[in-house]
Amino acid sequence: MEPVLARSVRLEPDGVHILDRRDFPFTREWVRCGTVAEVAKAIEDMVTQSSGPYFATLWGMVLAAREAVGTPDPHGYLRAAGELLIDTRRTNNALRKAVAIVLEHVAASDDPVAGALAGAHAGDERYRARSRALGVHTAERLPDDAAVLTHCWADLYLTETVAAAHAQGKRLRFFCTETRPYLQGARLTAETLAEMGVDTTLITDGMGASVLAAGEVDVLLTAADRVTMDGHVVNKVGTLGLAVAASAFDVPFLAMVQAPDRLAPTAADVPIEYRPGEEVLHTLGRRTATDRVRGHYPAFDVTPPRFVTDVVTDRGAFAPDRLADYYQEGTHD
Amino acid sequence: MEPVLARSVRLEPDGVHILDRRDFPFTREWVRCGTVAEVAKAIEDMVTQSSGPYFATLWGMVLAAREAVGTPDPHGYLRAAGELLIDTRRTNNALRKAVAIVLEHVAASDDPVAGALAGAHAGDERYRARSRALGVHTAERLPDDAAVLTHCWADLYLTETVAAAHAQGKRLRFFCTETRPYLQGARLTAETLAEMGVDTTLITDGMGASVLAAGEVDVLLTAADRVTMDGHVVNKVGTLGLAVAASAFDVPFLAMVQAPDRLAPTAADVPIEYRPGEEVLHTLGRRTATDRVRGHYPAFDVTPPRFVTDVVTDRGAFAPDRLADYYQEGTHD
Repeated sequence: MEPVLARSVRLEPDGVHILDRRDFPFTREWVRCGTVAEVAKAIEDMVTQSSGPYFATLWGMVLAAREAVGTPDPHGYLRAAGELLIDTRRTNNALRKAVAIVLEHVAASDDPVAGALAGAHAGDERYRARSRALGVHTAERLPDDAAVLTHCWADLYLTETVAAAHAQGKRLRFFCTETRPYLQGARLTAETLAEMGVDTTLITDGMGASVLAAGEVDVLLTAADRVTMDGHVVNKVGTLGLAVAASAFDVPFLAMVQAPDRLAPTAADVPIEYRPGEEVLHTLGRRTATDRVRGHYPAFDVTPPRFVTDVVTDRGAFAPDRLADYYQEGTHD
Repeated sequence: MEPVLARSVRLEPDGVHILDRRDFPFTREWVRCGTVAEVAKAIEDMVTQSSGPYFATLWGMVLAAREAVGTPDPHGYLRAAGELLIDTRRTNNALRKAVAIVLEHVAASDDPVAGALAGAHAGDERYRARSRALGVHTAERLPDDAAVLTHCWADLYLTETVAAAHAQGKRLRFFCTETRPYLQGARLTAETLAEMGVDTTLITDGMGASVLAAGEVDVLLTAADRVTMDGHVVNKVGTLGLAVAASAFDVPFLAMVQAPDRLAPTAADVPIEYRPGEEVLHTLGRRTATDRVRGHYPAFDVTPPRFVTDVVTDRGAFAPDRLADYYQEGTHD
């Protein structure tokens, strides 16, 4: 069964509908955005995250194309809308790609609205196809009845891996970390795996080493926000500790990313984002600690290649010291 | 300044007062126990934890001695009260020791009430003196301006270490993990360090490896619930992951325990307590996850000696493969 988060940004007759992940799964509210400006606001307000802003940008550009009809400069209107959307998350390169594919199709079409729609569909399909290929390659690496430990929310990489494993006749079991402070593991991953019929066990972020040492896990599997060309895995903070523990207790670590990042030869090319420390001092809106201390919130950590078994991409798995091979086979970005 | 948690069980004219740690530091409520039965109930209800039940048992026995006056068999009454207290936490050996020291003093005295009071004072002083010695030895291992990462709540070992470091003219800075699911790090450790004037930074349980890898930590320092004679450190779940990461990034790990456990030659002699998985699915009483998954809660983990630099006891620091030396110097338990 396809889980709701696998298709949580939708173009509907009255606008773009975005599933609100902020209180999911406790509530299942869809935010309706009637204009591109409302889509931008929703992205800015963190209604969606992970791959959600990419899809919201694609479909937001379709709304922009409709709004542009009859304006003096429809193409200028669309370019401005693209900038507005990109500005919501300047560090998210996927938004640039979403705007670009829509503008390319608009430029190649006589009808900007039809072009935008075709571009959004193409962007949607490209992202899903690459995630699907990645999922198939990942599932091939998992033994039947594998116990998989995952961290945070691997989004379509996760759902496509599970779908591919099921198609390959394999059953999987998952351990998910809760992933403080935002609990993406407890809220998004655990619910989605349960929706897909997967046996799912939740642990706190400090319990990963314990289940790894106890021999309860066959594979550590996470997404990566970025993988540098020399094999450093940049992902949600907490990944590093799990990878180090997996290595210490001889459990393989697979990191999933569509492609390694040619703009990042090594870890020094990836600045780590620090988010407000206050976010560490709360959970689900409730204060967790005294107000006499500060919080510290490095949003990502960097796992050195010595703790990474393989990086699984849409073109298959690569050892962390063989990532250049990914690009020798073609020009895919 | 002595923090409130360093003396959070008190004998007062109207009974034993126990600081309620369950909602500390958001509230500072003291539970008054007028009888030994009320003390037992408070321990059972988790009003206090860590070393708190030991002190509550000592002073609860004084209440029992007063209640026994005029009964047909005061000594029988006291022995029964001791069993009642021990029964509140059968796996906590400290409660047996608290009852024993009070009964020894009662047996050696003509006046059971005076004997019980002397025994409780002796037990209180013995525990504090050993913790103080341990704190002095630990502080000697910390450089001035050390950044210390700690996990969960090391109770008197922590407060005595900080007090000793300050007495040695050293300034310390601390990183504390929040320690889900009960947030002892966020609630007890962070508040107590702040009360002692220590610069304190709170992180989530998944961020330890990140700050260790970044070179922000000089020493990983935790208490141990038990240390086996061959150097395995049994402590709150999450310790293992931090110890493995500290080892990977060349940060020493010091585990504090008054004495290694002669009843536990190796890790196989220490059964791991599993608490109800439901506790993982909540924080501060609020549900954190879908109800379609199960939680898993190993309360402790076991850190093998290869990840332990030294075990610091009331008799000084010992390498994990030299713990037998502790007992060659005397008969202290």
